[in-house]
Amino acid sequence: MKNSAVVILSGGIDSCVLAFKAVGKGIEVYPLTFVYGQKHSKEIDSAKKICEELKLDPKIIDISSIKELLKGSALTDATVKIPEVAAEVENYETLKTTVVPNRNAIFLSIAVGYSESMGVNKVLYGAHHSDRGVYPDCRVEFVEAFESAERIANDNENLAIEAPFVNMDKSQIIKLGDKLGVPFADTWSCYVGTDIHCGTCSSCRERKRAFLEANVIDPTEYLK
Amino acid sequence: MKNSAVVILSGGIDSCVLAFKAVGKGIEVYPLTFVYGQKHSKEIDSAKKICEELKLDPKIIDISSIKELLKGSALTDATVKIPEVAAEVENYETLKTTVVPNRNAIFLSIAVGYSESMGVNKVLYGAHHSDRGVYPDCRVEFVEAFESAERIANDNENLAIEAPFVNMDKSQIIKLGDKLGVPFADTWSCYVGTDIHCGTCSSCRERKRAFLEANVIDPTEYLK
Repeated sequence: MKNSAVVILSGGIDSCVLAFKAVGKGIEVYPLTFVYGQKHSKEIDSAKKICEELKLDPKIIDISSIKELLKGSALTDATVKIPEVAAEVENYETLKTTVVPNRNAIFLSIAVGYSESMGVNKVLYGAHHSDRGVYPDCRVEFVEAFESAERIANDNENLAIEAPFVNMDKSQIIKLGDKLGVPFADTWSCYVGTDIHCGTCSSCRERKRAFLEANVIDPTEYLK
Repeated sequence: MKNSAVVILSGGIDSCVLAFKAVGKGIEVYPLTFVYGQKHSKEIDSAKKICEELKLDPKIIDISSIKELLKGSALTDATVKIPEVAAEVENYETLKTTVVPNRNAIFLSIAVGYSESMGVNKVLYGAHHSDRGVYPDCRVEFVEAFESAERIANDNENLAIEAPFVNMDKSQIIKLGDKLGVPFADTWSCYVGTDIHCGTCSSCRERKRAFLEANVIDPTEYLK
């Protein structure tokens, strides 16, 4: 069997470290990036840069028509504000507005279709522990249940859906990325999508905090 | 809680009968139809006609970019022939070419995102027993496993994914549709997509056979 995997590559830190880790282990990586109606395309640009760095052929799939269905998320719905001030970022309910309903299951199901079509048998996905509070589809229980369902759906007992960071937090992922030589400046976290990282949205704050905690130099330019 | 459901409406017999059944039971139906790179748009036209009949607002979502990922299916890949002659239609391996890798899981995951976004808590889907041999994602085991995974993904114990025809065969669905007054002439089964049903592809043959078995008059015009 080929040692290969579809890697869902958003252009954020987690999925970029994951792609570097997989390539480093000699896995033939099929990157997969989704345009799903995000308010900006900064992370898509980052995914392309990372593919260039790893000499992978980027595969950008536009499913932004689903935006019409998935209302209410700060990441896709123009009428919902991205949490930016500290009080919002620390508030669980406000943070929940950044959930895109069922996003990861949608991405994974398409990734599984791709892996089945290519005979790859593996999908890698960068869900990690810090996200599990707010994003239920970043839990290990979800990954396992989804893998079981997809094995049945495709009559394929060898199909694996793996989230190797699911028990790590973001600072541990940054430490690993640092060892692997990930060009962090080429990755994107900011939900707002200003020219450079805003530095104040919930995702930028998490990025800053994680670099500090990892004791790794943060090469990111922030607006604030 | 609202008595409502997202109904995946392909425009084929099964999903159209399902929509009629749901509306007949007083359920507020949110129909959802996918353009996913099919070789023709005949079934989309049928889905629209059925929505008109039921006074539902059609929701057509174009995710045909995924076609690039899901190669090898006779339904989407121009290089793969649709099984048409009897020997092909009766051959399990040839019939398997009509599988679109992971199609139903992809549709269901988007439908779940929609239902979560609308606070609907229910997705209805027309998988039925006759399909289970060739299409593993039409099995009751898949529906149950997928529901479990999606409940975790959305932290929603009330989410239901139901395939009420999963233990019925196509002739039983036709009998039910006949009772419900489904305008079968407005539904579409043919994989080939000629002006009228070709009458020879595997799906047309199954349609003919099921009407005969149900002892219901088949209003379909066939080429052969």
